[in-house]
Amino acid sequence: MPLKYFIVHAHHEPASFNGAMTRRALADLTAAGHEVKVSDLYTMGFDPVSDRRNFTTVANPAFLKQQNEERHATEHNGFAPDIAAEMDKLAWCDVLVFQFPLWWFSIPAILKGWVDRVLAAGRIYGGGKWYSNGFGVGKRAMVSMTTGGPEAMYRQDCLEPPMETLLVPIEHGVFWFNGFSVLPAFIAWSAAHGTDADRHVTLDRYAAHLLAHTGTPGRPPLNLADYPPPNFARKTT
Amino acid sequence: MPLKYFIVHAHHEPASFNGAMTRRALADLTAAGHEVKVSDLYTMGFDPVSDRRNFTTVANPAFLKQQNEERHATEHNGFAPDIAAEMDKLAWCDVLVFQFPLWWFSIPAILKGWVDRVLAAGRIYGGGKWYSNGFGVGKRAMVSMTTGGPEAMYRQDCLEPPMETLLVPIEHGVFWFNGFSVLPAFIAWSAAHGTDADRHVTLDRYAAHLLAHTGTPGRPPLNLADYPPPNFARKTT
Repeated sequence: MPLKYFIVHAHHEPASFNGAMTRRALADLTAAGHEVKVSDLYTMGFDPVSDRRNFTTVANPAFLKQQNEERHATEHNGFAPDIAAEMDKLAWCDVLVFQFPLWWFSIPAILKGWVDRVLAAGRIYGGGKWYSNGFGVGKRAMVSMTTGGPEAMYRQDCLEPPMETLLVPIEHGVFWFNGFSVLPAFIAWSAAHGTDADRHVTLDRYAAHLLAHTGTPGRPPLNLADYPPPNFARKTT
Repeated sequence: MPLKYFIVHAHHEPASFNGAMTRRALADLTAAGHEVKVSDLYTMGFDPVSDRRNFTTVANPAFLKQQNEERHATEHNGFAPDIAAEMDKLAWCDVLVFQFPLWWFSIPAILKGWVDRVLAAGRIYGGGKWYSNGFGVGKRAMVSMTTGGPEAMYRQDCLEPPMETLLVPIEHGVFWFNGFSVLPAFIAWSAAHGTDADRHVTLDRYAAHLLAHTGTPGRPPLNLADYPPPNFARKTT
């Protein structure tokens, strides 16, 4: 079954390995019959700063409470065109892919700003819409990243923080929170330090990874029924 | 002994609780004889997008490899004025404070961009300069944040990711990596949902927290001698 992929791409150099990965994903997914949209944030000049610029409406001109303005904009069709366009792509897709280089053990600011601005209260989350009742239920999401260091440096009890910890704010905090099931991350370890032959192998592995997971369900978001209010601690039955 | 504090402040609403926290820190630390500089990123119009705009110099016009450009700029005094000014404040300070609202389980994009752009290879890290040999050795750093949810929601086995995990990319990945010792984080849980009286109590607690830790050493960065190359795994002796 043909799928709709939305790749949010966050690298400033088109000739980078990140650029090669997104071009490869576009080519191979399209060749396999899927549809792909790419938001190339640097090329678009995407503005990552979240404030009143997100809106064409104003709920309270005296005090900027972002979530209130987001809910107001949701009700009054008041999102700025750059944000509304990203929301439409998010609603359209079956699979969301974040493509980025790991900068300071997390996503680059331009991608963080996409998260801060596009994932707005009202339109995307809130009012009971989160995790197993989230916007992304029925959709899947995936990290595709490059790192500076080799895999061995991101393990438990190493100098650097472990990768499983670094993925939590993205895979749990962004994907699961919003209802997306999480496909296995693809990590191009130390991409800049290999040879061209190494990089061709990695590109082949990335294309194979994408195609291998067209039909896999991914890890579903936490089930709200297992985490009752008020404190949302896991039920011990 | 008087100390030099550098608060990097990342909130879009001056009348927010984050704003009140930074004003209180400025007032009480100054009253106690310390010096304080604040980079109020929204008010400054700080640009969080990292690319060639960071530099007045160019090492390679054909291919943007950020760390190479950073090392080149370090050697040729080639950082853009907005970045150079932040580097100078970082060098000046004894204690670095990140003041922010937790957005999507991490720092707002405008602060992530400060990290991405200011903490440049060559000038700040690299060439053996990291962790116990880092730029920040002898300095301390501290998180001061507000959250949307109450403390009970950020524990292990809750719906939301645990706070100790969310702090890793900042306290380990940014502070420790660059040699800073880490002071205990101050977390204003669910600041927006309390009463004015609650918020006054929290501001008093924040001021007391800052003053209680003027003389405490903090948790020192990992010792490079315990994590030998090539894989930097902890020695088991």
